[in-house]
Amino acid sequence: MNKIKVGIIGGTGYTGIELLRLLRSHPKAEVIVVSSRSEAGQRVDEFFPSLAGQCDLVFSLPDDATLDECDVIFFATPHGVAMKGAGAFIEKGIKVIDLGADFRLNDKDEYQKWYGLEHTQDNLLSSAVYGLCEINREQIKNAALIANPGCYPTAIQLALKPLIDNKLIDLPHIIADCKSGVSGAGRGANQANLLCEVSESFKAYGVGGHRHYPEIKQELSLLAGKSVSLTFVPHLVPMIRGMQATLYVDLLNSEVDVQSVFEGAYKDEHFITVLGAGNSPETHSVKGSNFCQIAVQKAPDGNKLVVMSVIDNLVKGASGQAIQNMNILFGMDEWLGLEQIGLTP
Amino acid sequence: MNKIKVGIIGGTGYTGIELLRLLRSHPKAEVIVVSSRSEAGQRVDEFFPSLAGQCDLVFSLPDDATLDECDVIFFATPHGVAMKGAGAFIEKGIKVIDLGADFRLNDKDEYQKWYGLEHTQDNLLSSAVYGLCEINREQIKNAALIANPGCYPTAIQLALKPLIDNKLIDLPHIIADCKSGVSGAGRGANQANLLCEVSESFKAYGVGGHRHYPEIKQELSLLAGKSVSLTFVPHLVPMIRGMQATLYVDLLNSEVDVQSVFEGAYKDEHFITVLGAGNSPETHSVKGSNFCQIAVQKAPDGNKLVVMSVIDNLVKGASGQAIQNMNILFGMDEWLGLEQIGLTP
Amino acid sequence: MNKIKVGIIGGTGYTGIELLRLLRSHPKAEVIVVSSRSEAGQRVDEFFPSLAGQCDLVFSLPDDATLDECDVIFFATPHGVAMKGAGAFIEKGIKVIDLGADFRLNDKDEYQKWYGLEHTQDNLLSSAVYGLCEINREQIKNAALIANPGCYPTAIQLALKPLIDNKLIDLPHIIADCKSGVSGAGRGANQANLLCEVSESFKAYGVGGHRHYPEIKQELSLLAGKSVSLTFVPHLVPMIRGMQATLYVDLLNSEVDVQSVFEGAYKDEHFITVLGAGNSPETHSVKGSNFCQIAVQKAPDGNKLVVMSVIDNLVKGASGQAIQNMNILFGMDEWLGLEQIGLTP
Amino acid sequence: MNKIKVGIIGGTGYTGIELLRLLRSHPKAEVIVVSSRSEAGQRVDEFFPSLAGQCDLVFSLPDDATLDECDVIFFATPHGVAMKGAGAFIEKGIKVIDLGADFRLNDKDEYQKWYGLEHTQDNLLSSAVYGLCEINREQIKNAALIANPGCYPTAIQLALKPLIDNKLIDLPHIIADCKSGVSGAGRGANQANLLCEVSESFKAYGVGGHRHYPEIKQELSLLAGKSVSLTFVPHLVPMIRGMQATLYVDLLNSEVDVQSVFEGAYKDEHFITVLGAGNSPETHSVKGSNFCQIAVQKAPDGNKLVVMSVIDNLVKGASGQAIQNMNILFGMDEWLGLEQIGLTP
Repeated sequence: MNKIKVGIIGGTGYTGIELLRLLRSHPKAEVIVVSSRSEAGQRVDEFFPSLAGQCDLVFSLPDDATLDECDVIFFATPHGVAMKGAGAFIEKGIKVIDLGADFRLNDKDEYQKWYGLEHTQDNLLSSAVYGLCEINREQIKNAALIANPGCYPTAIQLALKPLIDNKLIDLPHIIADCKSGVSGAGRGANQANLLCEVSESFKAYGVGGHRHYPEIKQELSLLAGKSVSLTFVPHLVPMIRGMQATLYVDLLNSEVDVQSVFEGAYKDEHFITVLGAGNSPETHSVKGSNFCQIAVQKAPDGNKLVVMSVIDNLVKGASGQAIQNMNILFGMDEWLGLEQIGLTP
Repeated sequence: MNKIKVGIIGGTGYTGIELLRLLRSHPKAEVIVVSSRSEAGQRVDEFFPSLAGQCDLVFSLPDDATLDECDVIFFATPHGVAMKGAGAFIEKGIKVIDLGADFRLNDKDEYQKWYGLEHTQDNLLSSAVYGLCEINREQIKNAALIANPGCYPTAIQLALKPLIDNKLIDLPHIIADCKSGVSGAGRGANQANLLCEVSESFKAYGVGGHRHYPEIKQELSLLAGKSVSLTFVPHLVPMIRGMQATLYVDLLNSEVDVQSVFEGAYKDEHFITVLGAGNSPETHSVKGSNFCQIAVQKAPDGNKLVVMSVIDNLVKGASGQAIQNMNILFGMDEWLGLEQIGLTP
Repeated sequence: MNKIKVGIIGGTGYTGIELLRLLRSHPKAEVIVVSSRSEAGQRVDEFFPSLAGQCDLVFSLPDDATLDECDVIFFATPHGVAMKGAGAFIEKGIKVIDLGADFRLNDKDEYQKWYGLEHTQDNLLSSAVYGLCEINREQIKNAALIANPGCYPTAIQLALKPLIDNKLIDLPHIIADCKSGVSGAGRGANQANLLCEVSESFKAYGVGGHRHYPEIKQELSLLAGKSVSLTFVPHLVPMIRGMQATLYVDLLNSEVDVQSVFEGAYKDEHFITVLGAGNSPETHSVKGSNFCQIAVQKAPDGNKLVVMSVIDNLVKGASGQAIQNMNILFGMDEWLGLEQIGLTP
Repeated sequence: MNKIKVGIIGGTGYTGIELLRLLRSHPKAEVIVVSSRSEAGQRVDEFFPSLAGQCDLVFSLPDDATLDECDVIFFATPHGVAMKGAGAFIEKGIKVIDLGADFRLNDKDEYQKWYGLEHTQDNLLSSAVYGLCEINREQIKNAALIANPGCYPTAIQLALKPLIDNKLIDLPHIIADCKSGVSGAGRGANQANLLCEVSESFKAYGVGGHRHYPEIKQELSLLAGKSVSLTFVPHLVPMIRGMQATLYVDLLNSEVDVQSVFEGAYKDEHFITVLGAGNSPETHSVKGSNFCQIAVQKAPDGNKLVVMSVIDNLVKGASGQAIQNMNILFGMDEWLGLEQIGLTP
């Protein structure tokens, strides 16, 4: 089998370089074109010194003809770009995986409300498959367009799936206290993300409403088969990569062996690791890897259950899951190119 | 008035150097003796290079006679030490402020359960005043022995006091998701706190039961006048100083103007700052200072209220509050020696 | 004596908030006006949350009349601003201290070469005094205009002064390998200084020529009475504050007791601490303080001498030294407002 | 071809987990046994959570019989251990690669002087090959015992090799100002390496003599064919991984095109990347990878040449180079298992 030809649109951000890094060790795929409106003409390995001498690509313009030779296109762009560009590729039979938010919300009014942009592609929206691999694997296999999930939604859904599937928790009172490294904020020249502003500090943000909130609510409700209510507070952690979701839920049945429920639910999942009873996960265990580690503990007081999940926001929370989606789409082993474990220390 | 003579027992840890740093700028108190069993005989400014050339003290043995000349003794020692040593000073009319946990729990069985040590000083335990200044100011004024609160309990109680005082929340369902910098773990040579182990990582710990849990529960219940139930999960943040408590509570009355409640409750408190509506506090705003910043926001979904408080765990969470207690004890302005604002950046 | 009235022009950067922080604890000076073109009208304590509730100032426009009521004006602005604005204040008898580079280089052509801007104020340039307090104390006392030194030049000059004064080293072969925390790069929204770009990394920059290079060379040559040649390589350290200069010099006389030379040279200097033989300084020992710690060691091989100096780049390297200059200008004790020791940990 | 069977002795430190991480993606080698005296009997993936669910090994005792089935043994142990243990394996025809210092110094008196331990294995010492791959590739091919170089010596030798080979520099006046992340200090429970002690700080250490000094001097002298004199000052950088050597050398001939010399010298080396003129390397470009990036610039003043090299101290400075040595020993492509690029960001 020839290698799958991959194109990346908008390759200058953190999800772009992460796609390039991970796809380098993919045995059955190769990146043949990377576009960037702002850097067109520059060598990719001069822009990203980690690639110095290891990559001969030059940034193309977003309308470069080589993109049409690809089997799959990753959009690693701000919201709005994939909405406009995805259709043309899909018509040519090229699979599209959008790492942005353009196809995550089913309701175009919700999209407009949270992203401040009218959604103009109803057809695409209704055909897009939400690419949370461990939940929607079957639909992903035949999709033409994948909406790659957000990082917070990924960490939260993986932590709650076994509980919701087994109807073990009270759906209207979920609390998701989440913490993310700074790379989740992207590579834009934003004063708020200067080392001197965020290092040695911790804070909540978006308490009144974060863009991932409607996505989480939509997908948990789909999973549960009815409307779910949750309180979601994201926080910023002074580190580059890593994300933890700490979930507080009310168990409907305090007799159930929750540890076994989680172990059973994920025993065949390559990337989901349920830690032994009494453990808590650490984000550095999955640094640079596509794994998600989950632990569950009962609080000492009352019937609250605490579920903790950790991912690398740039891998399982973005580029790694996008590649996992590609692997599913093309009928390959899901872990190809994604076998690296976390960088320790 | 002569300066108050201060003695510090166990001055080699982070709360010890913080007492030394803060008391240097106190206009009405001076440290005349610092003891350390392990470092006795060494110059303090060789042990702590930040003091190089600025301090002529030499570490004494813990039985040094100079301690008896003090007006107040701070115990900055592991639990168990103050329990044994406090009585002798109190009998001589010397005030004692224990930065450790020996006199925080009213019930000696609880102490033994959580600290693994029999409590042998019933008399002292019953006479000790819990030194959360903004809550127990009146009792502190006449105390002989102050139990300086733990860092998590301080951040949580300050965030909940206006709500509990005004009976605004549902007491059995409080969730306290807390985050601390690494200095809270002390200065011991513990592999788990090496830079390479905790930097660039985030994790929960003590989910099954943390020593501050019974203290928080006891004090919130006293404040409420009835038993409070809470879920408390502490997390470790890759930074030196700083602590945030994120509290999730159910409002009993969704009509109440919670912002005004907080502003009213703390309008005369020097060290408590209620941020304007819509804000979230950041721990670096109080780095190195005795301030506590609090913000309150309603979650977009349901009737959950989110209260966020930040302190410097070594200042308002330890040495700063200890000095604030000393100021109250000796009838001085509460902010003496504690007027520094946070180090920015 | 009434308090000295202080105005700050350009108070929104890191040197601005550092002036505000330090001057709050100055017993004989008070800030009566802070200007900012971009933030005029905003409360200072909303812009800098570390001041929340602790400062009633509102940012003024740079032409606010209150500035004329000041005894001294600090320019905490980008280069070019003080050059234009300083003259008007000086004519009114108001002292001016420029934290920027406009009056540091004696030669206006050098200024134009390194800063890309024509120097239009010959008179001011020739009357300005270079405010390295420990070197030019006498001239500072009577200055109308102080050029506050750069951070690297401060660390380097303090490390070399005793050697140059005593003619102990070979002047044409000085090597200055310097390292700075990221706050030295200021608060501008620069992608290169995002946490994700600089954290967990180390690099040299400006190897081919850094703006502090001509300043260092000029001042060392003045100190030596003849031209000095040096190699200066600055590096960026993944931390907020702190600067180390590591100097490599050839001793002309290997018999001299260099430790004694340093101790003698600085025995009466409040802010310069010479560490004991065999020690190396650490930048965190001076974090947030105006101290400079210096150590000197002979390399095991050959006659190289290694001198290491550390400062906080925002204090002794900027705002603290500016206040020290103010104290000298107004005949006050040099350490007023600057007595804080380093924040440990 | 069957996979090479690898054993690791002393697998609980940072070089141990790094060997495990890298060898997981090696297509022609597999780890069949990992020993640890302290952790014998524990599952490796419980000890290192980054491996959770991904590794079925259990720590063996150091005398486990499985070690004798290996083709190659890595010693990832403190000095002294390989000295005693290597011989038995070599006699059985098993290759030995020592990541420690036991076979790096040719002179056993030097070893005793710097490591405080008598060297008892003269035979092994004289047969060991110093495994700096880009310098000693030919000897490595036939070695029975490889002394894997130290991290500082690796960064320095790679930076100087082209200059020494071409006799371009003055050998008695080399200055090596080096900076290392904290992981170089290992995983021992050392108070000095707590996050609170080293984060947000920078310092030199070992100025009076560091154990890598005799190794560097020995190897540079061998390379030059005569005795080299250097001044070596290591510094500690507040980050986990990464190392930079900044070298200051006197060019003997200022006309030579140094950039071309470097590019020519390394044009066929897979892991050595010479950056374009005017660049400076950053350690994060090689984080987690086996690459070494080098840049060379002339200082603006005088004839000093500044050479900068960066490596990941745990990869090219330890475990990665050890695997590169294994690949050479067994006649495989040098880059097998080592193709990962740096983790960005």
